[in-house]
Amino acid sequence: MADRIVVAASAGVDPTAAVAQFARYEVVALVVDVGGRGREVAAVRERARAAGAVDALVVDAKAEFAEQYVVPAVRANASCAQHALVPGLRRPLVASHLVSTARRLGASAVAHATSTPDDVALVATVGALDPDLRVESLDAAPVAPGEQDLWGRVVSARDLDDPWAGPAGGDWARTQDPEPGAEPDEVLVTFEHGVPVALDGQRFPVVRLLQELDALAGRHGIGRHDVVADLVDGRKVRRVTETPGATALVTAHADLERLTLERDLLRTKQVLDREWAACVGDGRWASGLRRAADAFVEHTQQHVSGDVRLRLHGGTAAVTGRRSDQSLYDYELAGPTDGGPPTLAEAWSRPGRTAARRDRAN
Amino acid sequence: MADRIVVAASAGVDPTAAVAQFARYEVVALVVDVGGRGREVAAVRERARAAGAVDALVVDAKAEFAEQYVVPAVRANASCAQHALVPGLRRPLVASHLVSTARRLGASAVAHATSTPDDVALVATVGALDPDLRVESLDAAPVAPGEQDLWGRVVSARDLDDPWAGPAGGDWARTQDPEPGAEPDEVLVTFEHGVPVALDGQRFPVVRLLQELDALAGRHGIGRHDVVADLVDGRKVRRVTETPGATALVTAHADLERLTLERDLLRTKQVLDREWAACVGDGRWASGLRRAADAFVEHTQQHVSGDVRLRLHGGTAAVTGRRSDQSLYDYELAGPTDGGPPTLAEAWSRPGRTAARRDRAN
Amino acid sequence: MADRIVVAASAGVDPTAAVAQFARYEVVALVVDVGGRGREVAAVRERARAAGAVDALVVDAKAEFAEQYVVPAVRANASCAQHALVPGLRRPLVASHLVSTARRLGASAVAHATSTPDDVALVATVGALDPDLRVESLDAAPVAPGEQDLWGRVVSARDLDDPWAGPAGGDWARTQDPEPGAEPDEVLVTFEHGVPVALDGQRFPVVRLLQELDALAGRHGIGRHDVVADLVDGRKVRRVTETPGATALVTAHADLERLTLERDLLRTKQVLDREWAACVGDGRWASGLRRAADAFVEHTQQHVSGDVRLRLHGGTAAVTGRRSDQSLYDYELAGPTDGGPPTLAEAWSRPGRTAARRDRAN
Amino acid sequence: MADRIVVAASAGVDPTAAVAQFARYEVVALVVDVGGRGREVAAVRERARAAGAVDALVVDAKAEFAEQYVVPAVRANASCAQHALVPGLRRPLVASHLVSTARRLGASAVAHATSTPDDVALVATVGALDPDLRVESLDAAPVAPGEQDLWGRVVSARDLDDPWAGPAGGDWARTQDPEPGAEPDEVLVTFEHGVPVALDGQRFPVVRLLQELDALAGRHGIGRHDVVADLVDGRKVRRVTETPGATALVTAHADLERLTLERDLLRTKQVLDREWAACVGDGRWASGLRRAADAFVEHTQQHVSGDVRLRLHGGTAAVTGRRSDQSLYDYELAGPTDGGPPTLAEAWSRPGRTAARRDRAN
Repeated sequence: MADRIVVAASAGVDPTAAVAQFARYEVVALVVDVGGRGREVAAVRERARAAGAVDALVVDAKAEFAEQYVVPAVRANASCAQHALVPGLRRPLVASHLVSTARRLGASAVAHATSTPDDVALVATVGALDPDLRVESLDAAPVAPGEQDLWGRVVSARDLDDPWAGPAGGDWARTQDPEPGAEPDEVLVTFEHGVPVALDGQRFPVVRLLQELDALAGRHGIGRHDVVADLVDGRKVRRVTETPGATALVTAHADLERLTLERDLLRTKQVLDREWAACVGDGRWASGLRRAADAFVEHTQQHVSGDVRLRLHGGTAAVTGRRSDQSLYDYELAGPTDGGPPTLAEAWSRPGRTAARRDRAN
Repeated sequence: MADRIVVAASAGVDPTAAVAQFARYEVVALVVDVGGRGREVAAVRERARAAGAVDALVVDAKAEFAEQYVVPAVRANASCAQHALVPGLRRPLVASHLVSTARRLGASAVAHATSTPDDVALVATVGALDPDLRVESLDAAPVAPGEQDLWGRVVSARDLDDPWAGPAGGDWARTQDPEPGAEPDEVLVTFEHGVPVALDGQRFPVVRLLQELDALAGRHGIGRHDVVADLVDGRKVRRVTETPGATALVTAHADLERLTLERDLLRTKQVLDREWAACVGDGRWASGLRRAADAFVEHTQQHVSGDVRLRLHGGTAAVTGRRSDQSLYDYELAGPTDGGPPTLAEAWSRPGRTAARRDRAN
Repeated sequence: MADRIVVAASAGVDPTAAVAQFARYEVVALVVDVGGRGREVAAVRERARAAGAVDALVVDAKAEFAEQYVVPAVRANASCAQHALVPGLRRPLVASHLVSTARRLGASAVAHATSTPDDVALVATVGALDPDLRVESLDAAPVAPGEQDLWGRVVSARDLDDPWAGPAGGDWARTQDPEPGAEPDEVLVTFEHGVPVALDGQRFPVVRLLQELDALAGRHGIGRHDVVADLVDGRKVRRVTETPGATALVTAHADLERLTLERDLLRTKQVLDREWAACVGDGRWASGLRRAADAFVEHTQQHVSGDVRLRLHGGTAAVTGRRSDQSLYDYELAGPTDGGPPTLAEAWSRPGRTAARRDRAN
Repeated sequence: MADRIVVAASAGVDPTAAVAQFARYEVVALVVDVGGRGREVAAVRERARAAGAVDALVVDAKAEFAEQYVVPAVRANASCAQHALVPGLRRPLVASHLVSTARRLGASAVAHATSTPDDVALVATVGALDPDLRVESLDAAPVAPGEQDLWGRVVSARDLDDPWAGPAGGDWARTQDPEPGAEPDEVLVTFEHGVPVALDGQRFPVVRLLQELDALAGRHGIGRHDVVADLVDGRKVRRVTETPGATALVTAHADLERLTLERDLLRTKQVLDREWAACVGDGRWASGLRRAADAFVEHTQQHVSGDVRLRLHGGTAAVTGRRSDQSLYDYELAGPTDGGPPTLAEAWSRPGRTAARRDRAN
């Protein structure tokens, strides 16, 4: 009996080419739905079967993706622009479904359509879940641009594009050029312990909340990124991505942290936030570092509850106000510095005393 | 004969109150022009004389400010939002003129209108220039909002404002709400060794270049900041500022660095950039740390030359292209990774080899 | 009725002077025993009563100190030399007993014998536990050198000593000059999840283990520190301390981490270890930063189990071997790099795969 | 005509095997003398000629190594234990002589005896000097342990040694077990701008100073390191090295910095010192990061002048005193904090004012 391989299929993968490439295997196609369009998911499945895959499975992983990956990314203020979170954030989720499916079906290998540098990340991610599973590379040919998930969309996968040429307007799909005369929108985002839970006071599950905010922010052209990035293989590439809802969420979350966390904690959290995003971008999701960083971040989020008002207009998500019963802002109006310059002891002890009063009041 | 005090005067200082407060001194008013409006400068001088100051001096420090303070800030990608660069960036310049004027006129003290936390920074800045000069605090009363310089403008100096209330539209002065139907502007910013030297191919001195870009970016509402910040005295304050030209310049500069500097250098430079901005915000301009950080940054800028295309629209300065004959981008198209997955040695040595080829070609 | 004040008494405090200084209060003396000598504890109590304290209480906090403060310090590899852990590490423990005693007895203030910079730390530590409790400073006069606890001993409290003069041999109390002809000692330290649990295979509670190792390491002159340190008030001071057992423990623990933790985790843990020690030295034990850093460190310690062999001789605790069933050392002897230079993907994925094999085997 | 290859020869390389391995080349042997024993250097040359090398050249690079590599390492407080400075520190020097010799003789390739992970570093180092030169690997077989230079000596090159087994006493060559009854030695090390210039008041060139101190410290068993380290290829290895003189120098230098540099500068310099050492260990000597870090370090060293007294005994180089006319220690004895707790402004401005007084006095 032939070895089996589980191939992560997606809109960008030509299943006929994939089945041909892995002719020495029995190919099982796996569609992990992390927020691509519904019709695409069904179509991928049918095409895989038609191409000769022995099976074609679909997993609806949208809620899992939102709760287990998007929420930690928001809590870690993952920079939408700087790090390769599209497709880095969904990679460990896809990898975990590849590994569990391979185990269930007795497959000895897995494959995913990736560009070369992403190969390195996928090999690392799978290897940390199952160190003995083989990881094959789908030939680049079958891969097409436009891959997306709940977090964002890659506008261009052509890694070696000229960094001087501007992306044509038609390349964007989730963000619109601001319309002439469009009015700003205001939206209130509510967080509980760092988790976004409501828009304008209406509670949503995270998947739905992100979809709503994504559509709204996209209409104002928010979350377009065009950067030169460094890959683990030492090359520089241009990355053009769009993440309207994620950009709005992270902007709001980071602002609420500045209201509710002490200054030294904010400064050190920035260091760990960067490490967190680098782990995700590099394929080190399963690493001890990412998990310990999450333990740090998780601890900090106990106070990150409250409302942030965003003004969405003309490409920018601007915070125009924030409030929280966990605020460290106004507890000290009548503090001991009145009546003279503060002593060192007063200044030094203020953040801790303010936090203690806040905690006693809650 | 009475002791003399040199008081930094500005549009926000009521000279009558200042002369009254320092009645035991002979008051010399000093107007350090760092980019406030011309009429204001003259008016401040007249009012100071009318109020009883023994002298009122005006120093045009705009070029000095642009070349010695703004350029290093751009090279260090000083975050316009996060750190207190308005008025932090002009503080050491004003302090150095206060100190030199005090020495020249035999004054034993200096004063500047500041809020309490800025007092700490001013005392530190003056102390590092002349450890024995007395630093007096102008009573807060005479200080008014709206202070500005070439870098930016403080929208509100009311430190304890409600962080939930949005700034009224009328509070902005250097940025406009995007007009309905306004078309985007594109502008090409040219850097040589990290110094901005031209707009759309036309060379300008830094003062003029910043003023031009400030006006252009301000018309698109770029560079509005509304943040909760932490002070050295342990308090949180809300800071609302606008820095249209500076925001556009730093955005362009940071992008050009990502094209021309190696990845490990970029990562470490981020650490030093943050330290640099913290030094400026905290009143440690004269410190060994700020000067050593500048030596690091200076060394990195030898390759930061090239053009960045900015699209200014609806509050956002978006980079849509960048080019440089110092680019590290495309030298390796035919590199040794063709024909197989890269070895560790190939990947590891690539940035250095690419830089070596770049340097040999230039 | 007079206000009450709870005064932390110790061998270094003259209770008569303390009662005189706080004549407007009813003075309650509190002896928190964190590893000073037994006879001293009893004597302090008697002297306080004789001096007019309305009460004199003794709390045996040795086990609490060892388990809640020393163990986290070891897990965070707290540098014995660089940071002010004597008396910084016991400060939050003493503060918490001051606060709880003040609450129980209805006292409105607390006091502790400290030098000026430590005042700042004490005010901050108490303020974060009870923001409304008054913190008084005992006059410096009554304070004597030689204070110690389980972690270490201050050789000299004379902060402004000449940094050029060497400490006289007689100043050391817990470390001996290596005797001519002394033979090295070897000792095996066993850790479970970062907690030291046994010496040479014999299990001890942490208090006893530290006391045994302290005596042994002290005989070889280990753990003497003579450094110029920076205080929060901007001064430089010379600190001469001795921490024989703590130095040996931290040396062993840090070595075991290098065997059992991945390289990127080690690098980031160093950053958090430094932050942890700075929090303790500065009086920010109760801060969100210290607690979040502990959450990070705690997460990392699940694998830090095993044995470390120390050779104690002539002032040095040298690691001569380490072993662990959590080792990341030798799982890859037959790994995929045999037969050619490693690919980037192999190198990049190795730590994660090695850790996955380790975890599967355990 | 055959291609030429320049092979770095050393005591650890069997020239016969090397000539056989590179039979398709004309082999030129290059002996770069960085502090191996004199007799060895001559012997290597003769053996290479006898083995069939077309030429065998010797370069005395000891002074170049000391001044261009050892001094920057001391200024950057390069941790002798943690990072792979043996042989990392001499690698770029050897590489630069390989490259210049290859150019002069028209060779198309270079080779050096290294272990696999060091291959990666050598390829990177050579590639950044001449991106088109081929780098060949000498088969591991011919490599023997015991390689050394002025900085230190590798006790064991057996990378996969059992980390639990202790090194036998006979493995050490530059450090002796402390003799029973040995008396401590004291030595005064003088630095000028971070460069070691004298021992006990007698001026030496750096090569000689390091050799003298190495011999003295080695007699007291100082500078033995036994660590588990992480390689760039993801493996952990055990490294046993000895660096008696370097350890003593770095200990003294780091102490003098604590006396003469401000606290915030010290904290940030630690970050750059680590980056510097990582660059050297990883083969990134020619990188922009290492050079910019050197610019930072160089700037800080203007004040690092003075004397440090070391006590050498029983494996430990202990600082027992330090003095400098650049000291930041004692300028503030009569400072403004007398008479009350320091204000925040006093504390905050103190380091800068102290440095300003120091600079004015010098």
